[in-house]
Amino acid sequence: MSISQNKFSSQRLNFMPLTRKLGSRLSVGLMSGTSLDGIDAALVRISGEMENPKVKLLAFRTYPYPINLQAELLNISEGGMVSASTLSDVNFRLGILFGNAVTRLCRSNRVKLSSLHCIASHGQTVFHLGHHIKGKKNRGQAPSTLQLGEPSLIAGHCKVTTVADFRPADMGQGGEGAPLVPLIDYLLFRKKKLGTITLNLGGIANITIIPPNSKESDVFGFDTGPGNMVIDALVRLLTHGKKLMDRNGCIASRGCIVPQILKKSLSHPFLRLVPPKSAGREEFGSVFVEKFLKSKIGIRPQDLIATATELTVTTIVNAINQFVLPVTSIERIIISGGGAHNKHLMHRLGVMLPNLRLHKSGEFGIPEDAKEAISFALLAERTLAGLPGNIPAATGATRPVPLGKIIYA
Amino acid sequence: MSISQNKFSSQRLNFMPLTRKLGSRLSVGLMSGTSLDGIDAALVRISGEMENPKVKLLAFRTYPYPINLQAELLNISEGGMVSASTLSDVNFRLGILFGNAVTRLCRSNRVKLSSLHCIASHGQTVFHLGHHIKGKKNRGQAPSTLQLGEPSLIAGHCKVTTVADFRPADMGQGGEGAPLVPLIDYLLFRKKKLGTITLNLGGIANITIIPPNSKESDVFGFDTGPGNMVIDALVRLLTHGKKLMDRNGCIASRGCIVPQILKKSLSHPFLRLVPPKSAGREEFGSVFVEKFLKSKIGIRPQDLIATATELTVTTIVNAINQFVLPVTSIERIIISGGGAHNKHLMHRLGVMLPNLRLHKSGEFGIPEDAKEAISFALLAERTLAGLPGNIPAATGATRPVPLGKIIYA
Repeated sequence: MSISQNKFSSQRLNFMPLTRKLGSRLSVGLMSGTSLDGIDAALVRISGEMENPKVKLLAFRTYPYPINLQAELLNISEGGMVSASTLSDVNFRLGILFGNAVTRLCRSNRVKLSSLHCIASHGQTVFHLGHHIKGKKNRGQAPSTLQLGEPSLIAGHCKVTTVADFRPADMGQGGEGAPLVPLIDYLLFRKKKLGTITLNLGGIANITIIPPNSKESDVFGFDTGPGNMVIDALVRLLTHGKKLMDRNGCIASRGCIVPQILKKSLSHPFLRLVPPKSAGREEFGSVFVEKFLKSKIGIRPQDLIATATELTVTTIVNAINQFVLPVTSIERIIISGGGAHNKHLMHRLGVMLPNLRLHKSGEFGIPEDAKEAISFALLAERTLAGLPGNIPAATGATRPVPLGKIIYA
Repeated sequence: MSISQNKFSSQRLNFMPLTRKLGSRLSVGLMSGTSLDGIDAALVRISGEMENPKVKLLAFRTYPYPINLQAELLNISEGGMVSASTLSDVNFRLGILFGNAVTRLCRSNRVKLSSLHCIASHGQTVFHLGHHIKGKKNRGQAPSTLQLGEPSLIAGHCKVTTVADFRPADMGQGGEGAPLVPLIDYLLFRKKKLGTITLNLGGIANITIIPPNSKESDVFGFDTGPGNMVIDALVRLLTHGKKLMDRNGCIASRGCIVPQILKKSLSHPFLRLVPPKSAGREEFGSVFVEKFLKSKIGIRPQDLIATATELTVTTIVNAINQFVLPVTSIERIIISGGGAHNKHLMHRLGVMLPNLRLHKSGEFGIPEDAKEAISFALLAERTLAGLPGNIPAATGATRPVPLGKIIYA
């Protein structure tokens, strides 16, 4: 059977809302990182054209996960066996929590839900494998990613159009599905003649490189390795859960680096991969931490924390020296994420990158903790307009595509 | 902080593509039922207004799942324990298979992918709980549903806008998430003055009731209980996997009903629930079949199959007599789904419903096997236009909402 080209063939674009120039609009961005702390919710006012957006953060809050749910998510993320029933249940429970986060943030800031342009939800990653690995039995698992937090429940609960689940579309084009913030970093932080690196210190650390006088297509980026993931895990273990993080880097600053452990950790195969590359709990989760602790006998806790902190610093610095500085000149590095509050880590970064000016993203109106949530709010409105959100040079995708799934309310 | 109503507050609708009147358009609908057979793919030409669509099926094929994948899906659906890694992997593998089904169907019918208006994908249900149940330890699990088959991979592979995952939006409004075909049944099969029931005999059986002279809001529907699920499972078990179904009802027609087993089966609590209600493998999967077989000693296989077939017939007939005929007059029943090929089952239905005219959906241009896939193609274009797809009286939802997630390619 041959079917003649139908007259609607090229009219798919008609179905895309092409509102690229807009007045100011309110959005909420939701981010739940690999740290499994809870839900970061950012209420933002966006104005200006999509290619040159201005963002004002109106409110930001982190809504911690209930402890039971956090434990369940950690178990799932660390490879624990669950039934489809449990996963389905957690997906829906998270969706409801995400919806509640939006309503609570809006209510406490006297913003009507009906005045929201859209909600962006990253979802809680419970599995992410950006590249082929050799699995057990010599059988490599194919790349895939899984985010939980049913977005239809967010849209339904808030009665606001929701965009969610940004990573699979990039992976469908052969990309790593991460990092996805480089385009937003370019839109927010590019500065003529000034080479810029943005560094996000979440559970995983990732960088975006914006060369001087760059176009969108010159931008690249990748995950450098652990951010706070290993440090946090060690603090939890060594304090028997009494502390969840090394606040301000106080513990690390009192410790000494253990060279053997650092050296061994730096031999992790992920660190040798040529970018683009992405990492997660699969690389730097509990299995890695166990190995890290293997030879801990006789070593003081503060030394272990100092060593883990140095691992984060060294992997970032090595990545910049090896993969960035040889190809472009960089003047400054703009840091965000929870790790930006770790004074010891920041100090060590400054020492190790003497030729770069260190900034925190807050200096540019984008508070460190809110940057990821803000970024996804910006990605969401691109998706609604049918615009691509990924940068192939950052993710390895074969082409730029709109990211995420749209749910009308 | 008080934020004044922003001028884009009510402009969310601008982001909805409102193309409700259309010329003819090509779509592919993908359906993967609880039978876990594989992927039903329907290539359709839709014309006319969305409230009165005309559908022509241009091609239909079932692409069976690879046996390993089928076994894995059965394990997951039956409550087997898996890691997030496995689930993520299966989700992506299914997404790729779904995308391949579209490209193969289009290629073998000489239709360019670029001429497709959209793809609709139901996804493979691995868990569905429409209503609260009392779980173990006296702790009821909340309703939720989980479909696999990553739609971003379909959209990315085919470069065609994809709508997928239709059930969660309805559940977000307190609905059962099923059945979702009633609105489409109404659009395709309503006939003035003629009360109509449509019956789909998939793994689960569901009916839509279209009273005479009805408006959309008069339509209702629900799952009546098992369709082919119990019959198929028994055939597989009793033939040690040599047969997968009771083709034409040949086995059942040679057997005798075992009254004790039928009676016991009819005491399943789902059957007593007042509609709207939905069922799945959780109700009529392996646990149910095990109980069914408990007293099988000395009973011939054909008697067990005959009894399972009679269970399907009786639950449908009881549901109609109890919940439909008391409230509206019905003249005809239009049957679709794989079970429509089971001559014994169809014969028994005719005997038990002497006052209704029995039709197969194929008589109305909608082949029995393709009806579900066609229905989701029609639901998808409603979603793209921002139109609701559920009928609250069928699902129990508090309001009609657009169903599914949109992925732009």
